[in-house]
Amino acid sequence: MTVPPLTPDAPEIAAEAIRATITRVLEKVNALSEGGPGWTRPSYSDLESRAHAIVESEASALGLQVSRDHAGNLFARMAGRNPSLPALYCGSHLDTVSQGGAYDGQAGVAGALALVSAMRATGVTLHADFVVTVTRAEESVWFPVSYIGSRAALGRLLPEDLKATRVDSGRTLADHMREQGFDPEALIAAPPPDRARFLEFHIEQGPVLDRAGEAYGIVTAIRGGLRYRNAALHGTWAHSGGAPRDGRADAVVAFADLVMAIDRIWAKFLAEGSDLTVTFGQVDAATPAHAMAKVAGELGFCVDLRSEDVTVLEAADLALRRETARIETERPGIRFDLGAQSRSQPAQLSRVMADWIAGGAAMIGDSPRRMLSGGGHDAAAFSNAGWDSTMVFIRNWNGSHCPDEGMDAADLARAVGAVFAALSENTGP
Amino acid sequence: MTVPPLTPDAPEIAAEAIRATITRVLEKVNALSEGGPGWTRPSYSDLESRAHAIVESEASALGLQVSRDHAGNLFARMAGRNPSLPALYCGSHLDTVSQGGAYDGQAGVAGALALVSAMRATGVTLHADFVVTVTRAEESVWFPVSYIGSRAALGRLLPEDLKATRVDSGRTLADHMREQGFDPEALIAAPPPDRARFLEFHIEQGPVLDRAGEAYGIVTAIRGGLRYRNAALHGTWAHSGGAPRDGRADAVVAFADLVMAIDRIWAKFLAEGSDLTVTFGQVDAATPAHAMAKVAGELGFCVDLRSEDVTVLEAADLALRRETARIETERPGIRFDLGAQSRSQPAQLSRVMADWIAGGAAMIGDSPRRMLSGGGHDAAAFSNAGWDSTMVFIRNWNGSHCPDEGMDAADLARAVGAVFAALSENTGP
Repeated sequence: MTVPPLTPDAPEIAAEAIRATITRVLEKVNALSEGGPGWTRPSYSDLESRAHAIVESEASALGLQVSRDHAGNLFARMAGRNPSLPALYCGSHLDTVSQGGAYDGQAGVAGALALVSAMRATGVTLHADFVVTVTRAEESVWFPVSYIGSRAALGRLLPEDLKATRVDSGRTLADHMREQGFDPEALIAAPPPDRARFLEFHIEQGPVLDRAGEAYGIVTAIRGGLRYRNAALHGTWAHSGGAPRDGRADAVVAFADLVMAIDRIWAKFLAEGSDLTVTFGQVDAATPAHAMAKVAGELGFCVDLRSEDVTVLEAADLALRRETARIETERPGIRFDLGAQSRSQPAQLSRVMADWIAGGAAMIGDSPRRMLSGGGHDAAAFSNAGWDSTMVFIRNWNGSHCPDEGMDAADLARAVGAVFAALSENTGP
Repeated sequence: MTVPPLTPDAPEIAAEAIRATITRVLEKVNALSEGGPGWTRPSYSDLESRAHAIVESEASALGLQVSRDHAGNLFARMAGRNPSLPALYCGSHLDTVSQGGAYDGQAGVAGALALVSAMRATGVTLHADFVVTVTRAEESVWFPVSYIGSRAALGRLLPEDLKATRVDSGRTLADHMREQGFDPEALIAAPPPDRARFLEFHIEQGPVLDRAGEAYGIVTAIRGGLRYRNAALHGTWAHSGGAPRDGRADAVVAFADLVMAIDRIWAKFLAEGSDLTVTFGQVDAATPAHAMAKVAGELGFCVDLRSEDVTVLEAADLALRRETARIETERPGIRFDLGAQSRSQPAQLSRVMADWIAGGAAMIGDSPRRMLSGGGHDAAAFSNAGWDSTMVFIRNWNGSHCPDEGMDAADLARAVGAVFAALSENTGP
């Protein structure tokens, strides 16, 4: 696959290019944030656009051809020898959750640019095109829609998705796209692109690699999600000292009942071997109407169920509804309103691409584990659109989607090195 | 006690004066509020001062002598025949919780003015002075201090209480007193007043009278409180889909565990005959750091324990601490910080005054029940200062401390009528 064959010092040259690119890209992108703690670059914000501009400038310096689609996804193409082969897209996103971390998304973009740097530094030219890819709006906390940018790139965003409103502005996705200079109408009208291949480096967002002392792993599947983002619990306001226990309809106690019941059910699902996570990530009984001396008559919350198996999601949803019904029966005056449900589909990733990366890892002496992704990722959207897709997880700690999210750039560089080795040898994918 | 003796049509004249005064005072005071829903007149706000000014104008029209102490409590004195007798103070407060109701506090002030109206209309003059009393800052949601105004009137406010900050402004009680034209330094230096007697009409803030179909009741004791207003729960932020169940330190689940455990313990206290209420009125896992896709690493909450028996409060507090310790042990990574504790003392009210009111009630054909007050009231501060104190509860519904708080002005008028009957006959107190 390489012309001319790599020189003996190519691995060192590549490693240095990878290391320097990762460090530089992370530093530049992470200089952009709303006020701390952590990093906040909302989907379709000026900050996200400025982060994309950094990649454009890096990619141009590497001699790549930069373009953007109607949704503002960025593609920086390194031409291969044979334009008729399906290209290898590689990248991630640069938006963050509110007060997120330094690596979620950023690491994948830095990894893709690092691969190009390594190829440029060592004179590798691929058969197929290699396309550094930066999607828009991957974090679904801003708009209640999953994988906005990647689904748009794949011609799979729906007209109704454009009407979703951003939580902080109340304005629609279409409005925010236009504000950043893009064209939602043209986007919907555009034909889907040819199927190609997709590779994404990403922090694990879980403790598996860190606990095992492993730098990186290869992802076999991505969990899907079933969410109630705006659930509410209605009870009866009352005086904290005047309302007897037996007449209360206390929204806080009813919520606690639900959380404990669902937590027990989660344990049962796991004991039966089902894949499932359950999270009540937001609870709001702290509005101006709430007070120390008042029994809470209202409570807002959200639920996030995730599984690699859509039938498990359905079963967990059924259990959730059964518990809310039980609580309504047992606690007169309590009423749940789960609100709109949103979903992302589980995705199986490419075994062929995973084997190809494992081959590259073997060349540098590594044997990364195969593992599941708990978080949703753009790779799921590419996979669901029929692209062969793969992910490489990088060890991280201190959680993710939070300011303290930890990652060692050397771990990312090692994973990029494995893919570089796979690319440099004519082993696939 | 009356000179000249009441004429045959005096009861009707008094009833009409009572009805008209209640309606007018409630209407005037409830025209004052920050934006809705409900009524919001913060302690030591301009709105509270304007509500006091309404009472001053009503009292002046009735020929009362109006004065204010250094804390801004208002006293409108109707001179009796014998100034050496201990006066009968009668009133309540005009501040509200955030988005509170139309009657909590207001009803007691309207009732006191209605009594004077009835006495003026029927030519009743008492032996002792009768002092319409409007306290400041009864609602302890604004400053973390109980019974600010009444304790100040009694010479029992402490210098450190003046340093408490108002939740919405962050400025001290002393600052807010000065802003409204009062003098915190002079207040602390002032000698306590002579012991006298105190009577307060107030909505029940509970369902007992409403369920029993009774218009009013006589209060025998007021529950005290033990509170943690700024408790926090620390866990570990994590990705909702990436963090396995067994490694999580989820602040929401730990909180639910605490709420359910304490609710079970509350049921046991009640089964053993102890008087107790337990309320988690505020729960905050909805900061910018919280998200649908994040396991919550932090949660803020408050706890309000109330009982007529201080030993029960101590036992409930011990149980609370035992449960937080258990949860910390069972859930690695979880840590509670209950923060500062604040208290109000339970108060026994005057049996002599209760019997005297019961006598008046009997004259108009009523036999009001004796009952407990769940909420704290200024009467507790007067009682704790050694004053003979009593309260008359008025039936209410739809809870209290909330916009829908319900009361029938006719119920209040009936209770005021009972006290008027007691005052008009030489039966005490």
